[in-house]
Amino acid sequence: MDIFAKDTIAAFATASSSGAVALLRISGPESLTVLKTLTNRQNFKPRYAHLVKIYDGVNILDNAVAVFYEGPKSYTGQDCAEITVHAGEYIKARLLELVFAAGVRQAQAGEFTMRAYLNGKMDLMQAQGVADIIAAKNKSAHKAALNILDGRLSQKFKNIRAVLTELLAKVEVRIDDTDDEMPPLEPKETFCTLDGVINLTESLASTFSAGRLVKDGIKTAIVGVPNSGKSSLLNTLLGFDRAIVSPVSGTTRDTVDAALKIGDFALLLTDTAGIHTNCTDFAEAQGIERSRKAMFSADIIIFLGDSQADQAAQEAILKEALSTGKKVLKVLNKSDLQGRKGNAEGYDIVISCKTGEGIEELKTKIIQAIGLSALQEDDILITSAAHYEALKQAGKELSAAKEHISDLELMAEHIRRAVLSLKRLIGEITPDDILGEIFSKFCVGK
Amino acid sequence: MDIFAKDTIAAFATASSSGAVALLRISGPESLTVLKTLTNRQNFKPRYAHLVKIYDGVNILDNAVAVFYEGPKSYTGQDCAEITVHAGEYIKARLLELVFAAGVRQAQAGEFTMRAYLNGKMDLMQAQGVADIIAAKNKSAHKAALNILDGRLSQKFKNIRAVLTELLAKVEVRIDDTDDEMPPLEPKETFCTLDGVINLTESLASTFSAGRLVKDGIKTAIVGVPNSGKSSLLNTLLGFDRAIVSPVSGTTRDTVDAALKIGDFALLLTDTAGIHTNCTDFAEAQGIERSRKAMFSADIIIFLGDSQADQAAQEAILKEALSTGKKVLKVLNKSDLQGRKGNAEGYDIVISCKTGEGIEELKTKIIQAIGLSALQEDDILITSAAHYEALKQAGKELSAAKEHISDLELMAEHIRRAVLSLKRLIGEITPDDILGEIFSKFCVGK
Repeated sequence: MDIFAKDTIAAFATASSSGAVALLRISGPESLTVLKTLTNRQNFKPRYAHLVKIYDGVNILDNAVAVFYEGPKSYTGQDCAEITVHAGEYIKARLLELVFAAGVRQAQAGEFTMRAYLNGKMDLMQAQGVADIIAAKNKSAHKAALNILDGRLSQKFKNIRAVLTELLAKVEVRIDDTDDEMPPLEPKETFCTLDGVINLTESLASTFSAGRLVKDGIKTAIVGVPNSGKSSLLNTLLGFDRAIVSPVSGTTRDTVDAALKIGDFALLLTDTAGIHTNCTDFAEAQGIERSRKAMFSADIIIFLGDSQADQAAQEAILKEALSTGKKVLKVLNKSDLQGRKGNAEGYDIVISCKTGEGIEELKTKIIQAIGLSALQEDDILITSAAHYEALKQAGKELSAAKEHISDLELMAEHIRRAVLSLKRLIGEITPDDILGEIFSKFCVGK
Repeated sequence: MDIFAKDTIAAFATASSSGAVALLRISGPESLTVLKTLTNRQNFKPRYAHLVKIYDGVNILDNAVAVFYEGPKSYTGQDCAEITVHAGEYIKARLLELVFAAGVRQAQAGEFTMRAYLNGKMDLMQAQGVADIIAAKNKSAHKAALNILDGRLSQKFKNIRAVLTELLAKVEVRIDDTDDEMPPLEPKETFCTLDGVINLTESLASTFSAGRLVKDGIKTAIVGVPNSGKSSLLNTLLGFDRAIVSPVSGTTRDTVDAALKIGDFALLLTDTAGIHTNCTDFAEAQGIERSRKAMFSADIIIFLGDSQADQAAQEAILKEALSTGKKVLKVLNKSDLQGRKGNAEGYDIVISCKTGEGIEELKTKIIQAIGLSALQEDDILITSAAHYEALKQAGKELSAAKEHISDLELMAEHIRRAVLSLKRLIGEITPDDILGEIFSKFCVGK
């Protein structure tokens, strides 16, 4: 990518499969010139939808709608043009050829948004929100992405950064104050400020456990002895027959994955092979191995019990599930069968895939167990591991700063590092910061 | 479809797979109201790209660009709105829900263009051109579609219709002239006029043979004895290995299809199993049967000869190819092998898939043989079977009219039918025409 963004780029912003119209986006200083060349038209009122003809030499390529956005009032902050053409394969290919012939080059992935960031239209965190909002498949993921895109998450980082830079200024002025003209810093006050900011970073970082589930979906493994009805539960939750179900024990060999919406959240279900110990079949053994792996990569494990099945075998599986350290929901299946309901002791919930009993309650319990039911509409969540790491890093530096309140130089250095790890995320890095970052890794005296 | 087009409809006009942005199109009297509801914004300057927020209740769904087109200056002729949102799955689904909740219904396939037709923004033929231009994959198909979309083909039909309606008026005024006050029609002049129009319809209809190939591609079957190099020729023409090639005779069992661009045209190549008579293998026999079918459905057959192969078998295949009545190009392969070039008598061209000799010439010869090399840049082609049939029908009626020059009533009826078959294509049917069409099928006196 050309981070100086002086040239003009173009790409279709709409999906490449078949549709009625396709939108070509152009950004850069030559946008208007290219638009004029393509359309044989001289006047483009900014932000006005002009009905134009696109010319391929003397021939018409297509009737189109063209909008010119005069920078800086555009997505990228540069002069931009958007041309909406019929989404024909030939038209799209030829239009790109014509645009490239006019000296424009193909935009790379994310390059328009990068220019928007470079031109101060959004910070780096917001730019990443653009990708998130396009990827969002459910309400909670969309909400989290929108908080990033609209800068609400950035604002949280900026607030922390602001408190720290103010404190840093106070510290630095005292470091420079070699004549001791300034009143010294009140250690208790400094301590309180640092503690407050550490709490802020920690509370923001703590939203990552929910944010990750919201963005990526809740990985849920269904485990149990053979024939406990795991595939039936998967099908019942989905509302259609995804997995093959048969009364024959061990029907499911490989794991079966399916995605499901529960309220505003996404559940990524994995139906596993029934686990039993006296397995002699090689393929079945492979399946059981995969069941174990599924448990370890799950966010929540549904242990599906059958009160008529071998209790020792079931206890072994439950123990294995609990040993992963994951949330485990103990679910007793087949409540429709005579006498099975009575043995529900130790279970969180009793269901029947046949009658549908308890299924809705199970969905609610999954969301509760995973800790998402407490989410508020206006909660702002960290959904990116990089953001989480940066907050943890900042918290660590601030804790170190707290330990060196008496040594202004050292405290300042730790605060500076904390600020830098936050500024890097929102893309507020200045040349001074880059120099600072490079030289801060040098030993003192070098 | 609601052909009265009084309600408001909406649909995404962009492809449904993943992209950066998606465009929702709304058309109908409620367009502006819906736009205001969605955006919590009151002022929309027509044709101006407004940066808006789309609201889902009190929450923001997305930042979008909205353009309001005030009818009749819009695609459909009605009030229209276009909203460009981030192409997220959740955003797109939720936006549709919000729009539907505002009383708009999902547009059916082609409904926006149907409204454009109903509101006189384009005729019926042009409306069909919209689908053609989106489907066009190569320059010639695109050109033919654009001629339809921009009304140049409609104009040809309208010109013929105009001459006929003028003639019809002259005939009808004389039918009504019971007092014989008008001078009688000059039979020779009427004959000439009809003849001229018949020539016009026939010359336009005759472009269908080229138009069909331009729009649908040139179906080309490669046939020959086993091991004559048919699959090698397919791969050589394509420029990559589509078919499996081996020195073992009979490698290709089923037919293999591939599309190829030759200049501005599309070639739909079918590589067939080698045909031989003493075939005992069932699968191979099936393959040979399919080779025969491919010949019958092809526009052009490439007979691939091998001068060292069994001449009687080759002659049998060539005879079969010729018996289909299709164009047959006789191509001698393997010119790179010693002594094979000398036996080129009776062949149209000598090639080598190994050295590439003759391949470019073969492409040119295919276009020539199929009659497309004479196409001019500004030729206007019939590409639709319905248009072709209507022209043939009109021609038939006009020939009948010519035979009844002395019987004004009968001549008028035939001319009227010819006019109707042309008007129906461009969608110029009036209630009178519909009544006329219904009652023209009644016996006289009923």
